[in-house]
Amino acid sequence: MYTYNYLFDFTRNVFMKMGCSEHDSEIIAEVFLAAELRDHASHGMIRIKDYYELWKAGRINVKPNVRIVHESPSTAVVDGDNAVGMVPARRSMEIAIEKAEKAGTGWVATRNSNHFGIAGYYSMMALKHDMIGICLTNANPLVSPTFSISRMMGTNPIAVSIPTRKQPSFVADFATTPIARGKLAVAEKKGEKVAFGFVQDRTGKPSDDPTILKSGGSMLTLGGDRVHGSHKGYCLSAIVDIFSAVFSGANFGPFVPPSVAYLPVLEKKVGKGTGHFFGAMRIDAFQPADEFKAKMDEWIETFRSAKPAEGQERVLIPGDPEREAEERIRRDGIKLVPAIKDDLIAIANELKIKFE
Amino acid sequence: MYTYNYLFDFTRNVFMKMGCSEHDSEIIAEVFLAAELRDHASHGMIRIKDYYELWKAGRINVKPNVRIVHESPSTAVVDGDNAVGMVPARRSMEIAIEKAEKAGTGWVATRNSNHFGIAGYYSMMALKHDMIGICLTNANPLVSPTFSISRMMGTNPIAVSIPTRKQPSFVADFATTPIARGKLAVAEKKGEKVAFGFVQDRTGKPSDDPTILKSGGSMLTLGGDRVHGSHKGYCLSAIVDIFSAVFSGANFGPFVPPSVAYLPVLEKKVGKGTGHFFGAMRIDAFQPADEFKAKMDEWIETFRSAKPAEGQERVLIPGDPEREAEERIRRDGIKLVPAIKDDLIAIANELKIKFE
Repeated sequence: MYTYNYLFDFTRNVFMKMGCSEHDSEIIAEVFLAAELRDHASHGMIRIKDYYELWKAGRINVKPNVRIVHESPSTAVVDGDNAVGMVPARRSMEIAIEKAEKAGTGWVATRNSNHFGIAGYYSMMALKHDMIGICLTNANPLVSPTFSISRMMGTNPIAVSIPTRKQPSFVADFATTPIARGKLAVAEKKGEKVAFGFVQDRTGKPSDDPTILKSGGSMLTLGGDRVHGSHKGYCLSAIVDIFSAVFSGANFGPFVPPSVAYLPVLEKKVGKGTGHFFGAMRIDAFQPADEFKAKMDEWIETFRSAKPAEGQERVLIPGDPEREAEERIRRDGIKLVPAIKDDLIAIANELKIKFE
Repeated sequence: MYTYNYLFDFTRNVFMKMGCSEHDSEIIAEVFLAAELRDHASHGMIRIKDYYELWKAGRINVKPNVRIVHESPSTAVVDGDNAVGMVPARRSMEIAIEKAEKAGTGWVATRNSNHFGIAGYYSMMALKHDMIGICLTNANPLVSPTFSISRMMGTNPIAVSIPTRKQPSFVADFATTPIARGKLAVAEKKGEKVAFGFVQDRTGKPSDDPTILKSGGSMLTLGGDRVHGSHKGYCLSAIVDIFSAVFSGANFGPFVPPSVAYLPVLEKKVGKGTGHFFGAMRIDAFQPADEFKAKMDEWIETFRSAKPAEGQERVLIPGDPEREAEERIRRDGIKLVPAIKDDLIAIANELKIKFE
């Protein structure tokens, strides 16, 4: 078990050694650790190696000039200058919040960025300003549209955070696929099959093989198949892709650059880097903040009191599992599996810093 | 087969006879007919009877004072004054577009409204202004959150329309459930079972019985079950409900009023009427409009050229099926099933107008 502070300091030091500023390195560490605390380890310390390898391959800019390239009273487009994704992402959400202070709402599309960690981190930044926060991002293509076998989209997540008064905040943060890619890797390691509805083979036939991506298969959109509404998951994923990439001038769909160095840079580009989209809505642009937050408490209390199905203990509110995980992990510490620990030790050795 | 004009004139006359202004009646007729043209008959002429019965029961205000009750440069809250839903919905989307002209984006939450027809109609209003249009609405509760058997949410649709240059517009308009409720009615009439993943029985057990809602069952969210991501459909439906109702001060979740007169007015209210949410985003608040639209063409051409799965002819773009239906129906006419025709004749007789 590791403490939050130990892993935070280590992560900050890794990125400072790579040449990032102390300020940027602290932001990056904060987002990686937020994933660990919220029990989304797939977006946490495991990804430090990916960034380290991208940096060694000269594919990441550690001295970026993140800047607004276009704006209106309630909108902006930000160019991330090929930075570590957390840096332009956090700045973009700050701009959305600044815009919302004046115009009621703020909307920022970001191009030329890279993998930014968990979307929920950015949507949650709005909460302390009494704002609703929204965050979308596209990602490297693994997912096929309905009726297709081509990998055209990422797992393109949607995060929405809504402030409350006494109840915990409403925080939804989910991929527009039935499962995250990491769950396929877990099943593969255990030698298990997965449920039908997650992946298909190279011909479009439903599959329960978690390794199918390696033989030309692809992931399916939320809904799984056409009968169960996969075309709605396709719509959602497409909307996330367009808002993230077409609004900003980033690469869309199949042209989103890989977030790992062992995959080559794509030959064809239709924009710059990876794209994100951020929104901030001041709640008192709609209702007096106190009234709104009291009403959200009532909404949450109403849904929490829904009757559980037979065999279920309780009905959850979006954000409950992650908040409960965070309480537990802050108390007990962060666990890293041996393979990740070994990777971090190897990185530490190369950078001449310490990790144990 | 009926012509568009015949049904438009009839619908306008019905609402004028009920006391709506000519202007309002034409809006209402246009939205009902838009549903017929787009082959969403479940939201078309079949619903005239519902409104007629609500009006006879004194539950609809035909002389509404639709007004802004709160605003910021990019936002407004509209009170629909218990009007026929199309009237405040169209006005709200117009306000969103006016706000976007000045502030880059416009966002309107609407309360004290009623069933407004198809969400896509309003999102598509933005297209001719070179804006992205967004429309959400809550609806009377039929759907259970994951792990629950309580009917807490409607089929809460999401509509997003995005302008293009040469390609047809991108128009996504979908319920946050695997299927619309109307498909259960169709299966029931045919005496058929439905696929598992659409409904559950009163204890929460998966069911293939399309009549299960009559014996305490409920509809499931997009994803179907927890394994296949129903909690993500629950998040989406909850977000639609909160944006539509908590932002505006409408009734949320289980308190959304019924859109039919044979169901009683609910005793408990937590707000006013049904709620909607509208957004308009000027594309040149992000990119020069021509560049954006050319890039959307490229997006669509890229996705249209995705390789079809075995046995599939082609990969669709959101909006393709409805646009193709509209071409066919404008050419061939609108078909009404005998039961609906009989209902409309009965209404015509009572109102002393003509329908045949």
